Amino acid sequence: MYNLRKALEENKLLEIKVKLNEFNPVDIANLLEDLDHEETLKAFRLLNKDLAVEVFSNLSSEKQQQLIEATSDEEISRIVSSMFLDDTVDLIEEMPAGIVSKILRNTSPAHRKLINQFLKYPDDSAGSVMTVEYVALRTDMTVKDALAKIRKYGIKNESVSDCFAVDKERKLEGIVPINQLIINADDTKIADIMTDNIEKVEVDSDQEYVAHLFRKYDLSNMPVVDKEGRLVGIITVDDIVDVIDQENTEDFQKMAAMNPSDKEYLKESVFALAKHRILWLLILMISATATGTIIRKYETTLQSVVILAAFIPMLMDTGGNAGSQSSTLVIRGLALGEIKTSDIWKILWKEFRVSLIVGIVLAGLNFLRILCFDKVELKIIIVICLSLFFTVVIAKVVGGILPIIAKKLHFDPAIMASPLITTIVDACALMIYFSTATILLHI
Amino acid sequence: MYNLRKALEENKLLEIKVKLNEFNPVDIANLLEDLDHEETLKAFRLLNKDLAVEVFSNLSSEKQQQLIEATSDEEISRIVSSMFLDDTVDLIEEMPAGIVSKILRNTSPAHRKLINQFLKYPDDSAGSVMTVEYVALRTDMTVKDALAKIRKYGIKNESVSDCFAVDKERKLEGIVPINQLIINADDTKIADIMTDNIEKVEVDSDQEYVAHLFRKYDLSNMPVVDKEGRLVGIITVDDIVDVIDQENTEDFQKMAAMNPSDKEYLKESVFALAKHRILWLLILMISATATGTIIRKYETTLQSVVILAAFIPMLMDTGGNAGSQSSTLVIRGLALGEIKTSDIWKILWKEFRVSLIVGIVLAGLNFLRILCFDKVELKIIIVICLSLFFTVVIAKVVGGILPIIAKKLHFDPAIMASPLITTIVDACALMIYFSTATILLHI
Repeated sequence: MYNLRKALEENKLLEIKVKLNEFNPVDIANLLEDLDHEETLKAFRLLNKDLAVEVFSNLSSEKQQQLIEATSDEEISRIVSSMFLDDTVDLIEEMPAGIVSKILRNTSPAHRKLINQFLKYPDDSAGSVMTVEYVALRTDMTVKDALAKIRKYGIKNESVSDCFAVDKERKLEGIVPINQLIINADDTKIADIMTDNIEKVEVDSDQEYVAHLFRKYDLSNMPVVDKEGRLVGIITVDDIVDVIDQENTEDFQKMAAMNPSDKEYLKESVFALAKHRILWLLILMISATATGTIIRKYETTLQSVVILAAFIPMLMDTGGNAGSQSSTLVIRGLALGEIKTSDIWKILWKEFRVSLIVGIVLAGLNFLRILCFDKVELKIIIVICLSLFFTVVIAKVVGGILPIIAKKLHFDPAIMASPLITTIVDACALMIYFSTATILLHI
Repeated sequence: MYNLRKALEENKLLEIKVKLNEFNPVDIANLLEDLDHEETLKAFRLLNKDLAVEVFSNLSSEKQQQLIEATSDEEISRIVSSMFLDDTVDLIEEMPAGIVSKILRNTSPAHRKLINQFLKYPDDSAGSVMTVEYVALRTDMTVKDALAKIRKYGIKNESVSDCFAVDKERKLEGIVPINQLIINADDTKIADIMTDNIEKVEVDSDQEYVAHLFRKYDLSNMPVVDKEGRLVGIITVDDIVDVIDQENTEDFQKMAAMNPSDKEYLKESVFALAKHRILWLLILMISATATGTIIRKYETTLQSVVILAAFIPMLMDTGGNAGSQSSTLVIRGLALGEIKTSDIWKILWKEFRVSLIVGIVLAGLNFLRILCFDKVELKIIIVICLSLFFTVVIAKVVGGILPIIAKKLHFDPAIMASPLITTIVDACALMIYFSTATILLHI
């Protein structure tokens, strides 16, 4: 990568100007992140106007704030008016009050009104991920009118391959791929070349549902309408990629027993990180006490055959791992829509059979291992291996169906992941272990 | 949803024809999945020709096979020649040999050559996810020539908003957004309106790297070139959404100690499921034996203060959970490129501080809980809570840095997730527990 800092120190301004303007705005933004305040300003001012806007959109909020503080009102006005509306809204949500008022002071009243409207859409709604940079065509226009409109106003968002057909009340009627405007004759009516069987969502639809539609229908963009069916924005698939990443991150966090947070790890404060983690650790810690109670109940058993304690970690860990495997597959299947709650009996039957195979193999190998390497009575080995087998079976069945039950009860299935399953399976494992021991060893 | 089966039973063919042709092909495919063989054929033949191709592409491989077996050579030839090339390649990869030869017999020699070439691209490479449905324009063409070419050949893939500019040797030179063809004058040269600073990949690039570029640069499509820089295909973002889902599923599976599989859970056989799970369970089971060895070493301690055993599950579980939280955040951060291996010291310091807070809160609350509800000696409570505190600190630090070390050693960081971290932390927890007990209780 280009050594921008060195070039700035040597004051090679012309070289920097030429070089930077050849780069992708995302890469330039990354380069600027590593510079100090003075250097950032110096480099930013060397960018061409259009490129500057794109680079600005890709900067971290700290850098954006620095730049706005050091920038004249005119320049702010120019940058903000050229940014995509969704980027402007993100910017305003991140900035402190003083900076926000500096930005809003420099936007036109119409633009300000739009921004305010966008700020009202709830987080995670279609409204919060949509953008307004699209081409709307009236259904009664001809191809010639449409082309004239596009030539006059341009297409701000070049990655959108469709225009959107609306009636006089701006009600969404259909989609017109841009290439239809190229291949059809000038006097063709938009109404005749539009596709009217289209997927759309309302502004307050959940973004996870929107992502589901994009996946299901392989969409590259989707119109967003208000309660009356009027077109208010579009969602492009590159924003859906971000939504998918965000939803997956949330699932990973929930499955590791944390409150989800969409902030990057390195940018989150130590207190926030601790706060997200403590509650679940506490709940699970107290639940694990139940497992302790089981051990206390069998204190005398344990005192007479203390070797039994040595195999508790192996039993608990294997049970927990076996259960987590099953719950993870089912949670993921539910998230991708590959598994429905009505599949519960299929899953029960499948996990039962898988657990028989896995249980027999693990118990068998464990039997041989202890027999060969440990000095343990045969009776006790049998207790250990029988317990292991039953633990694996219960773990897999419980791990497989608890996420489905959670979903049926309208909880997030992701909470039924490794930590909670482990706690439940631990209790089962010890109960099986000690009752088998009491019976077989006649204690 | 439309009750297709009922309508078929009542033989309302005209109604079905009208209804079905209004639906989205993905939805029709889902409807057909629930029908038996006869019904499927009957319904499929009612579809308009173009729609039939799209529906066919969206069917499961079982249904596709049924249809091909029951379909005439001409019809197969028509369907396959209209399908997107990447869908045809997927189809051929899924079908048994007899069906494959029936398909290939009905494709043109040129098409067959392309298919064969695609079949050679390794799984997970850019070549395996790309498609050939794009418009290539020569750099020396004018806008008028380009429009004429598009009008003549059409644009098969309507979701692609770009044309690709190549030189005489088909070397990729730039990208031309379709709207540039609309807003520029007829005699403008393609070379003058193309963007030449573009992201591209080679056919054998890894699909995970391709997904990374799409994310980083917010792309909607990307050209794929061969070793000589000649354009051979494009990748569209809807296929990248599938790649992202697949990569995430793999991470979830690895993090739950399974060999990854890209087959849907419900479609995978019981033996395959068991096979993916046994190896890691076995490795972890044997590792957990080490933890057992620690307990055996302290058998006498345990025999004299058997109550200590009751708190082993709580200590092990809390340690495992605390460690998994940290490792999950770091693994996810590495996967999204938000964390680099050079951040190891930052993470160590951050996790250390988080663990101090979490450790003090958990140990403190646990102290109060045991004091109030359990009849345990104060000395023993102190042993338990001190061990809990140190276990949490070690768990979080180990959980935070092991994924980074794995990445530095070119292992997949995802293996350093809950199961392995739990096994390591368990051993630490018991060592701390028993040594603290020996020292404080003077056993």
